[in-house]
Amino acid sequence: MERLSIICNHFEDNDSLESNEVAANSNNNNINNNNNNGLATLNQNSLNNLIQINSKINLDSEKIEKITKILFDHPDKEWTAARNRLIEVLKDPIFECKPYASFHEQRELAQKRVAHLASIPGGPILKVGEIVSNYKKFSMFQSTLVYCDMSMAVKSSVHWGLFGASVCCLGSEKHEKYYDDIDTCKMSGCFALTELAHGSNVKGVETIAEYDNKTQEFVIHTPSDTAQKIWIGNAATYGCFATVFANLISNGENYGLHPFLVQIRDTTTLKPLAGITTADNGPKIGLNGVDNGRLWFNKVRIPRDNLLNKFGDIDANGVYSTPIKNPSVRFNSMLESLIGGRITVANMANSAAKMGLYIALHYAFSRRQFGPSNGKEVLLIDYITHQRRLFPQLAEVYINQVGINYVINKFQNRTEKDARDVFLLACGFKAATTWNRSKTLQLCRECCGGQGMAASNKIGILRADTDVDLTYEGDNTVLMQAVAKALLQEFKSYFTGTKRITGMLSYTYSKGHIGIFLRNKNFFTKRLHTESHLLDPDVLLDAFIYREFKLLRNLIKTLRAKVKNEKMTGLQAWNSSLDLVLQLANAYIERVSIEKFLEEVQKSPEDIKPILTSLCILYELTKIENDLGWFLSNKYFAPVKGQAIGNTINKVCGALKDHAIPLVKAFDIPSQFLTAPIIGDWVSHFSNPNNC
Amino acid sequence: MERLSIICNHFEDNDSLESNEVAANSNNNNINNNNNNGLATLNQNSLNNLIQINSKINLDSEKIEKITKILFDHPDKEWTAARNRLIEVLKDPIFECKPYASFHEQRELAQKRVAHLASIPGGPILKVGEIVSNYKKFSMFQSTLVYCDMSMAVKSSVHWGLFGASVCCLGSEKHEKYYDDIDTCKMSGCFALTELAHGSNVKGVETIAEYDNKTQEFVIHTPSDTAQKIWIGNAATYGCFATVFANLISNGENYGLHPFLVQIRDTTTLKPLAGITTADNGPKIGLNGVDNGRLWFNKVRIPRDNLLNKFGDIDANGVYSTPIKNPSVRFNSMLESLIGGRITVANMANSAAKMGLYIALHYAFSRRQFGPSNGKEVLLIDYITHQRRLFPQLAEVYINQVGINYVINKFQNRTEKDARDVFLLACGFKAATTWNRSKTLQLCRECCGGQGMAASNKIGILRADTDVDLTYEGDNTVLMQAVAKALLQEFKSYFTGTKRITGMLSYTYSKGHIGIFLRNKNFFTKRLHTESHLLDPDVLLDAFIYREFKLLRNLIKTLRAKVKNEKMTGLQAWNSSLDLVLQLANAYIERVSIEKFLEEVQKSPEDIKPILTSLCILYELTKIENDLGWFLSNKYFAPVKGQAIGNTINKVCGALKDHAIPLVKAFDIPSQFLTAPIIGDWVSHFSNPNNC
Repeated sequence: MERLSIICNHFEDNDSLESNEVAANSNNNNINNNNNNGLATLNQNSLNNLIQINSKINLDSEKIEKITKILFDHPDKEWTAARNRLIEVLKDPIFECKPYASFHEQRELAQKRVAHLASIPGGPILKVGEIVSNYKKFSMFQSTLVYCDMSMAVKSSVHWGLFGASVCCLGSEKHEKYYDDIDTCKMSGCFALTELAHGSNVKGVETIAEYDNKTQEFVIHTPSDTAQKIWIGNAATYGCFATVFANLISNGENYGLHPFLVQIRDTTTLKPLAGITTADNGPKIGLNGVDNGRLWFNKVRIPRDNLLNKFGDIDANGVYSTPIKNPSVRFNSMLESLIGGRITVANMANSAAKMGLYIALHYAFSRRQFGPSNGKEVLLIDYITHQRRLFPQLAEVYINQVGINYVINKFQNRTEKDARDVFLLACGFKAATTWNRSKTLQLCRECCGGQGMAASNKIGILRADTDVDLTYEGDNTVLMQAVAKALLQEFKSYFTGTKRITGMLSYTYSKGHIGIFLRNKNFFTKRLHTESHLLDPDVLLDAFIYREFKLLRNLIKTLRAKVKNEKMTGLQAWNSSLDLVLQLANAYIERVSIEKFLEEVQKSPEDIKPILTSLCILYELTKIENDLGWFLSNKYFAPVKGQAIGNTINKVCGALKDHAIPLVKAFDIPSQFLTAPIIGDWVSHFSNPNNC
Repeated sequence: MERLSIICNHFEDNDSLESNEVAANSNNNNINNNNNNGLATLNQNSLNNLIQINSKINLDSEKIEKITKILFDHPDKEWTAARNRLIEVLKDPIFECKPYASFHEQRELAQKRVAHLASIPGGPILKVGEIVSNYKKFSMFQSTLVYCDMSMAVKSSVHWGLFGASVCCLGSEKHEKYYDDIDTCKMSGCFALTELAHGSNVKGVETIAEYDNKTQEFVIHTPSDTAQKIWIGNAATYGCFATVFANLISNGENYGLHPFLVQIRDTTTLKPLAGITTADNGPKIGLNGVDNGRLWFNKVRIPRDNLLNKFGDIDANGVYSTPIKNPSVRFNSMLESLIGGRITVANMANSAAKMGLYIALHYAFSRRQFGPSNGKEVLLIDYITHQRRLFPQLAEVYINQVGINYVINKFQNRTEKDARDVFLLACGFKAATTWNRSKTLQLCRECCGGQGMAASNKIGILRADTDVDLTYEGDNTVLMQAVAKALLQEFKSYFTGTKRITGMLSYTYSKGHIGIFLRNKNFFTKRLHTESHLLDPDVLLDAFIYREFKLLRNLIKTLRAKVKNEKMTGLQAWNSSLDLVLQLANAYIERVSIEKFLEEVQKSPEDIKPILTSLCILYELTKIENDLGWFLSNKYFAPVKGQAIGNTINKVCGALKDHAIPLVKAFDIPSQFLTAPIIGDWVSHFSNPNNC
C-alpha cells in the first residue's frame, strides 16, 4: 500500500483548492444570473445553428452509404465480398424467419443452420483460422447471423469462436490437423469452462486432469457435484468434442487450469462416450436453439497430445514446461488469447440493438396516437417522450459500434505488450454494449406498445435471446472490476515512476491533462464559460476526463482510508467499494467511446459530419444528464447549467428527427430479415386474418 | 389560459428569492466544510444508531407475521379464510409448475386452470359480484394466482375482472341473470376495446353499433381494417362472449362509445358465429397461455337488451337517454368504474416482483464467488453491488404494496366525489409498480447469473409473462400524463378560488406546505441543517414535497410561455413538455407512496418499526439519488450532501442485510410455488442429471 500513499499525497496537497473552487463556482452563478438564466439562453444561437445545419442536410442514399462505411470500419473489397456472399447464403429457405418455432424445433433449426453454413459449396463460410488471421471478418459473420437467428449465431460462436479458437489459439502445430474438421462441423464442439459452483471465478474450477506416466494419458475427472460443467453450449445434444478446462496434475503437483481436447460423444450416434455423463440444462428464458448442457467426467482417459499445449506442456515422463512461469499470468494469457469471443459478444449485442431500433423507429414514423379533434392524430415519433427514449439509444449504438471497431482492430494487431490493454478494452466494451443492448431492446419493445409483444415483431424475441449476454463471456459487473483494477495499476505505475502511461490512460496523458489536472483542479471547470459549451463535443469530453480522474482519485483515497484507518484487508476494502469501482470503469469506457467516435468524425466526409457530431453531442449530454448528480456534487457544472442540459437534449433530439430513418437504414441490415410486420404497411398485413 | 396566469404571477414574485437562496447555500457549504466534509461525518452517530438498532432485532416468525399483516392490509377473518381456501385449491395437481410447457400446452393449461377455479365444489372461487362488494378479496385472488401461472392469472383477470366487471359495473339489473354463468365460466368472456389503430386513444375507436328501430336490435359492424379489435384476451380460441365497445348510433346520431354484450362463438363447438371473423394474435414474447386474438364484426345483430346500459340507454324507438350528459365525462365514468382492473394489474406486478426477490435473495445467501485465497469464497449478498441492486427493489416492493393497499381501500369505499382521484391514483400506481416490477425482475435475473436464465428458476419466465403490464390497461407513459394533468387542474382550481384542495394534493395542503412554500421557497431547504436529516424519513419526505411543487410550478410556467411566447396550441405546448409532465407525475406518486408508508409505519408494532423505517429511508434515499441532478440543480441539497447520500445508502443496505430473508418470507408466498431450484439446496438438485 506504500505506493498508493504516494499518489494520495499528491491529491491531499490539492484539497486546499476546494474552497477556491467554491468561490469560483459562486462567481459562475452570478455571471449566469446576469446573463438571464444562464446557458439555456446563451446557447440559443448555437442551438438554432445546429438545428439549421441539420435540417439542411438530406441523408440521401449516397450519404447513407458513407455512414454505413464508417459503421463497417471502412471495409476493403475482400471484406465486402465476404459479407455479400454471406448475405446470399442466408437467402436459402432454411434461414427463413421462424418466430413461432417450438423448443425442439428451435434446437433442430439452429443445428441445421450451423451445419448448412459449414457445408455450402465453395467451402465453409466460417473458418477457425480466420479468428487469428482476419478477426474483423469473423466478427462480421457473427454480427450478421444475429439478424437471422440469435441461437444459430451463438451456436456458431460456441463452435468456431470458442471451441475452434481454443484449439487454434491454445493448441500448437500438432493440433492444426483438426482445423478442417472443425470448419466443416465434422468435429462439432463445446467449450467447457464454467462449473456449477464456479462461474466468474474460473480459478476455482475443480475438474482435474491427472497425467498417467505409464500410459502417457491424462485422466479427466469430475471430483464433486459442484464441479460438474454447466451451461455448456452444444453439450446437451449435438456437441461431440469439448475443450475441457481442468487442473493439470502431474507427479503429484497441480499446475493449475489447462485446456484439454476431449471427445464426449460418438459422432454418428450422438451417444455420450464411456465415462461421460451429460445432462440437459432444459428450456431457458431465451436462446432455446442452443442446447446448453452439463457434463461429468468419470476418469476419462485422453492421449497426452490432447493437451492444448501452447501455454504449458508435459513431456512423456510428466515433466511440466511452460513459457510463462507465473501461474496467474499464464492463466490470464490463455484467457486473453480467447478475448475475441468477448468482442464478438459486444458486436452481436449491438446488432440486436440495431434491429430493435430499426423496427421501433419505423413503427414510430407510421403509427399515430391522439391529436387535435379536427385533424390527423400525431405520429408517435413526434412525441418528445418517444424521441427521448429512442434517439439517445440510437446515438449510443453508433458510438458503441465505433468503439467495438476500434477494439477489433487493436485485437487483430495486438502485440505482447498491449495484449492486456486489449483484454481490458474488450471487457469494458462488452459490458457497456450489452447493457445498452438490454436497455435499447426494452425501450423499443415499450415504444411499440402491444405490437412489441408479438413474436413476429422480433424485438421481444431478440431481447429474450440476447439477455444472457449480460452474463456469459464474463458477468458485466465482474468485467468492469477488472477494468477499474487495471486503471488503478496503471495510474500507480505512473506516479511511482515505474512506467510511463502508454496504455489505457494514454490519450488523456497525451493531451497533458493529468499534469494540468493535478496542478489545478479548476482547469476543466474554468473552460465552461464559453458560450457554446453544451454543443461542443470536445468541451463536453473534458467533463468525462475530469470525472474519470476524480473518480480514480477518490477510489484510491477511499481504499487507502479503509486499509489504513478501518484496518480492512485489501480485498475487504475493494469489495466494500465496488460501487465506486463500477462508476470508475463506466466513466473510463464512456470517455474512450467519445474519443474514438470524435476521431472518426474528424476523418469523416464533410457532408455527414454535422449529423455524426449531433449523435456524439446527444450521447455526451445524455450520459452527463444520467450522472448529473455526480457532476453537480463535484461542482463541475453550476446548478443552472444542469437545468439547461435537459432542454438542450430535447433540441438535439428534434434536430435528429428527420435523420432517424436514414440513420437506421445505414445499419444495412440484410433486407430478408426485415420481416417484422410493423416495419411496413401493417394495416394491410393485419387485414389478413391468417397473418399474425 | 387566464387562470394559469394568476398562478404564474404567484411564482414570479418569488423568483427574486433565488439569489438569497444562493447565498444561503454557500453558507451551507462553509458550515459543512468546517464540520469536516459534511454529513458523512455529521451523521456517523445516527448511522451507527440505525445499524445498532437494526442489528438488535431478530425477525422471528412472530415478527414476520406482523409484517405480513401489514402487507396484506390487516386482513379480517373472512379474507384470511378465503386466501387459505384458494391456497388449498391451488394444491391440486393441475396447478403444478410447468415451466417447460409448449405454446399450445400453455394455452390449454391456462384454460383448464381457469375452468378448474370456476368449478370446484362449494362454488367458483372467484365471483364477479365481489368486484363490487369485496374488491380487496378479488385483488388478493388475482395477485395470488400470479405465483402459480401468470397466464392463468391474466385469463382470469380478463374473464372476471374485465368481461365480468363490465357486465356488472356497466350493465344494469337486467344483466344480473348472467352473473352465475360468468362465475362458472359457462359464459367465457372477452373485453373488446382496443383496435388495430386505436390503443391508448380509445376515443378513436371506430366500431359501430347502429340501432335498428324496426327489429329493436343493434347492428355491430367493423367499418375498416384499422377498426379490427386486436390483442383481445381469450378471443383467439376460447372466449364465447365479448363486451364490445362501439359507437352507439341511433336515428342517425352518434352517441359515442358504449359497451355491448355480443356472443362471438358457439359455446359447444367454439366456432365463430355468423358475421364474426376471428384471428389469432399468434405467439407472443410471453404470456402465451393467453389466447389473444382479433375480431371483425360484419353487421352482427344483437338484441337491444345487450347494451350494457348503466351510462346510456336506448328505448324501443331509439331515443337515447343518459344520467351523464357530457359525452366525455360519460365515457370517463365508464372507464372509472372499471379502474379496479388497473389496480389489480399493479397488485399482480408487485406479486411478480416479490417472487423475483424471494428467489434472487435466497440464491444470493447461498452462492459464493471469489474470496481470500486461504478461506471460503464470499457470499454474493456480501457484495455491495449485489445489495445495491436488490435491497432498494425490496424496499420499493414494500412501499408500493402499501400504496396499492391504500388505493384498493379508496376504490372500495369511493364516492362519486372522489372517483376521479381514485382513478388517477390507480393510473399512477399502476405505472410506478409495473415499471418497478420490470426493473426488479431484470436485476434479479442478472443477480442470479446463468441460473437466472433457466426456465425452472422462474424469474425470466415471470419477466416475459409480465412485460406487457407496462402497456395493457393503459400505456404507462399515457397514464402518467393523466396524473399530471389532474394535478395541474387541481392546483389551478385552488388558486382561482373555485375549489379547496381536498383531492390529490390534500395531504400537503393539510400540512400547510403550499402556503409556506409560496411565501418562502427556502422553507424546506432551511430544514436541512439538522444533524440527522439523511436518516429522518419525514425530513426526506420534505424533499419530495418540494420537488413536486417546484415541478408543478415549472410545468405551468413552461406551458404558459409556450402558449404565450411561442404561440403554440395548448396541445402542442403539452406534447412538447411531456418530459416535464412525466417528471411531475412521477414525483407525485413517489411522494404519496412515502406518505402512505410512513402512516403505516406510525401505526405498526414497536418491534418492527425500525426495520420498516429503514426500508422507507432506503426508498427515499434511492429515489433522491436517482434524481440527484434535479435536487442539486434546484439547490435543494448542498453539493457536499449529495456526495453523502451514496455512502448513506450503502450503510442502510448493510443494516438491512440480516433482515433480507425474513423480509421476503413475510411476502407469504404459498410454499407449493417456491419450486425454483436455486431457492434451496441447488447442489443436490443439480447432482441429478435428470433435473434441470
